Amino acid sequence: MVLIPGSKNEYFEERDKLIGMDRALRRDSSYIQSRSALEKEADEIVRRIRAEEAESIWKEDHLDVLHPFPGMEFLTGKRIIEKTRIFKIISQMPKGALLHAHTPAVIEPRTLLQLALKEPSIHVRVPIRLTPTNLWSTLPIFLPLLVESRQSIGTSISSSDYIPDTWVHIAKARESFDRALGGPKGFDDWVIGALTVNPSEAYGTYNTVTKIWKKFQSTFSVAVGLSSVSSLLHEYFRLFFIASINDGISYIELRIDPDFLKGILGEDGKRYLTQREVVFMFGETIHEIKQELKKEGCEDMFLGARKLIYCSLKNVAPKDLYTAIEDCISLKKEFPHLIAGEFSRYDLVGQEDELRPTIDYIEPLLYFRKRQAEEQIEIPFLFHAGETLGDGTAAEDNVYDVILLGTKRIGHGFSLVKHPKLLQICRERKILLEVCPISNEVLRLTSSMPMHPLPSILNNGVPVALSCDGPSVFGNFGVTYDFYQVLVASETNGLTTLGTLARDSIEFSMMQLEEKKEALRVWEIKWNIFLQKIVNLYGP
Amino acid sequence: MVLIPGSKNEYFEERDKLIGMDRALRRDSSYIQSRSALEKEADEIVRRIRAEEAESIWKEDHLDVLHPFPGMEFLTGKRIIEKTRIFKIISQMPKGALLHAHTPAVIEPRTLLQLALKEPSIHVRVPIRLTPTNLWSTLPIFLPLLVESRQSIGTSISSSDYIPDTWVHIAKARESFDRALGGPKGFDDWVIGALTVNPSEAYGTYNTVTKIWKKFQSTFSVAVGLSSVSSLLHEYFRLFFIASINDGISYIELRIDPDFLKGILGEDGKRYLTQREVVFMFGETIHEIKQELKKEGCEDMFLGARKLIYCSLKNVAPKDLYTAIEDCISLKKEFPHLIAGEFSRYDLVGQEDELRPTIDYIEPLLYFRKRQAEEQIEIPFLFHAGETLGDGTAAEDNVYDVILLGTKRIGHGFSLVKHPKLLQICRERKILLEVCPISNEVLRLTSSMPMHPLPSILNNGVPVALSCDGPSVFGNFGVTYDFYQVLVASETNGLTTLGTLARDSIEFSMMQLEEKKEALRVWEIKWNIFLQKIVNLYGP
Repeated sequence: MVLIPGSKNEYFEERDKLIGMDRALRRDSSYIQSRSALEKEADEIVRRIRAEEAESIWKEDHLDVLHPFPGMEFLTGKRIIEKTRIFKIISQMPKGALLHAHTPAVIEPRTLLQLALKEPSIHVRVPIRLTPTNLWSTLPIFLPLLVESRQSIGTSISSSDYIPDTWVHIAKARESFDRALGGPKGFDDWVIGALTVNPSEAYGTYNTVTKIWKKFQSTFSVAVGLSSVSSLLHEYFRLFFIASINDGISYIELRIDPDFLKGILGEDGKRYLTQREVVFMFGETIHEIKQELKKEGCEDMFLGARKLIYCSLKNVAPKDLYTAIEDCISLKKEFPHLIAGEFSRYDLVGQEDELRPTIDYIEPLLYFRKRQAEEQIEIPFLFHAGETLGDGTAAEDNVYDVILLGTKRIGHGFSLVKHPKLLQICRERKILLEVCPISNEVLRLTSSMPMHPLPSILNNGVPVALSCDGPSVFGNFGVTYDFYQVLVASETNGLTTLGTLARDSIEFSMMQLEEKKEALRVWEIKWNIFLQKIVNLYGP
Repeated sequence: MVLIPGSKNEYFEERDKLIGMDRALRRDSSYIQSRSALEKEADEIVRRIRAEEAESIWKEDHLDVLHPFPGMEFLTGKRIIEKTRIFKIISQMPKGALLHAHTPAVIEPRTLLQLALKEPSIHVRVPIRLTPTNLWSTLPIFLPLLVESRQSIGTSISSSDYIPDTWVHIAKARESFDRALGGPKGFDDWVIGALTVNPSEAYGTYNTVTKIWKKFQSTFSVAVGLSSVSSLLHEYFRLFFIASINDGISYIELRIDPDFLKGILGEDGKRYLTQREVVFMFGETIHEIKQELKKEGCEDMFLGARKLIYCSLKNVAPKDLYTAIEDCISLKKEFPHLIAGEFSRYDLVGQEDELRPTIDYIEPLLYFRKRQAEEQIEIPFLFHAGETLGDGTAAEDNVYDVILLGTKRIGHGFSLVKHPKLLQICRERKILLEVCPISNEVLRLTSSMPMHPLPSILNNGVPVALSCDGPSVFGNFGVTYDFYQVLVASETNGLTTLGTLARDSIEFSMMQLEEKKEALRVWEIKWNIFLQKIVNLYGP
């Protein structure tokens, strides 16, 4: 009980006590108590630079940016962010694990396009000949075609003799792209536009959750068509792993739709790969990267990746989930290190509010639990939930169900902040939230970082890892941008908070206990090098 | 502890239990348990209509409204809101007490202008002759002039011979307003524009908290100049009380700046009223209204009003607060029923983040507590706090201080949701939050009602009353609009929630215990009439 104190000294004592109690649940509080003098010094330096930049670069006039402020809309503020010293510092930080990102939305869209242009199988079609009038309202439909289907295909999707919905090879379509549409460069811009969300779409045209999701989903369809070829996908994974390692990420868990897994064209162009072949290829790519790093004497930089299988519930009637469950079990048995489980509300054609709620799938999900017991395997649930602004809607109630189903982590959990009992359960049972600040903001769950509920989640002592969700679409590659937004939007958070988030991303990953210990040991070494670098570069 | 249940039936049992635990703290939960069959029926009707309207009127195309949705930006959605049946229903609801509104921003700005035009004392000046080019970037400066200062005044503020910064009588300025500026109607539009925030200002031009506050503050300066005359102010209070009564409000606590109290010109135009004269006049106006209602046999409709004195801290150095404290004590002694105390961070020229934090005033505030003990009076603190998006900033820390200082209620408390310990204290010590949803949204603390933290506050069992803050500026007169936004943005909230908010507004008012009992008794009667009306009008 806090009493009204009488004297000024007494008041300040009570005040410190109250603030202390309020922050006692935070997961960074024990680290703050026990941190080294070096970490304290580095933290103070970062706080000083943050305060300086809030008053300098964030208050200057910038071309095309009407209202700059720390934590502002990412798509508008990105170029300012990249100019700051805080960004440079965070880009050097060892980030731990990347726990929430979706294939195929994890590499630079221009790179993906370049890879696709080299593939003989990838073709494009449009439902209407492209003209300057319909260009920006028409989406490209990409698909890798089987060798046998590549006959009698057109030469241009913008010429007057184009027959709607006929396939043209992607490189040919690019070369022959009408000058009035900008020629080959115009083609590139059109495809990139279809793979990304731009500021005027997020903050103007589609300025609600439901509307921006329509655009977001369409970027996934385009990316799936561009990347569903075995040779390309191998390179896709490689580039993604390398970029992640360069961002300071040392372990990855990637979400992949089983429908995507089933649609990968083999190198010979004669058949589609089986799911197990794709999973195997994923494992091989990890192995390659690790071997390369070993040669260079820096195997510490990457500790691996583990794939999460998940299921597009909207397309699936509850009774059809049983097939996916058996697929998942057999993949887990063959690749125990590569599979974690998510049968989630997420899918490519619907936002949480528009989908059937998790409770509709309760029978197959309970059956899945039973099957795991029979097979004596454990495939932990890692559900999406609470990625909604609804309050008490059927979609929002998913937060209850994923907890009852024993989820180990929650993807997003944005609405969890409304539920005192669930916050307590997540804290006590150590259920981590995979928070994706920039994704939430671009997808209009929050207007900017200062409005994001993360401070409540952290003050409630719920474990959190930051992630990027669909960086090809948003442009937030790695986790540096997301860490940036979190650091600059709060004066409670400091360097020790970021360190706690990174540690928890490892602690709550699906690695084995021994792997985690090793990952944490390596992380601590890198963390201290990082702190020393800050002090050397920016200290007095 | 929630376990993973095995069978489907068991699952549903656990699910109900978990949802029950999560909602157990809510203040409407006991009312939901014990409500009458009539209230249950009315609640179901309202839920049905809300769901219908979410799919009909909120999904239709509306002129000039690009993205309609329930709980959307108020200034853009207002005309759609007014067309709904839910709005019509809520406008009939007995609302309880209005606990958070600021003079002089509580009546229709057009009415205020009409009143001002009749006053011989009110004059206007501008720093530059008005032209079509500078009109919308130039604010009118209004001031009631002492008789002795009304000599040698100009004839027009838009004619070529206008000498900048010279006074012109308001009616003369209006009549002579240049045709190129729209003539007298153009004058009215210009003044109304200066008294209100319009959608393009809130959502475009000034789309951050700091920027929109500059506009918000300027509307207050204009309103103060237009209303600081004794005869007008008497009518101002009357009109405000009558409009509030018509909105279903039966008791009012109004915030008034002591500087405003000191600047009211007397009827003879020869001197300014003393603070006690203005407070006396306020009391007289209440008395008049009550007498009129009594004559009509409906004295139950209005139970009175109590004025809150408060202090503009930013203009005040901590040492200068002592004068205001003594003023407050002497007013309380003379008008015990009309004064409650707030020495708050709020003022007319600064937003919370820009002001000195409450802690800077700790010495005079502790002294004030001591003086009250000496004088054997009690002037409860009713502080503003947490009206900020800051996290861990000096301004945000005000939430700790107002609680330590024993505040009985918190004005806004928007950021309280971040603080688990403070939520617990507010729940246990019964500190009510005066939540102003539309004000928060227009002033850009939240982008729309679905992003507002109110659901967390309610689920944490913190008492809440809804209020309108500065309705002249936002256009949310009464509390119907604010109740509307809360009801349509959540499926957890229903009619019983609104009833709970109304009851709590009475329960946590500064009325005496006996007055509260009476107010609640009357409210319950009206509530049942209201429920019956819903069932009669919209039931099967």
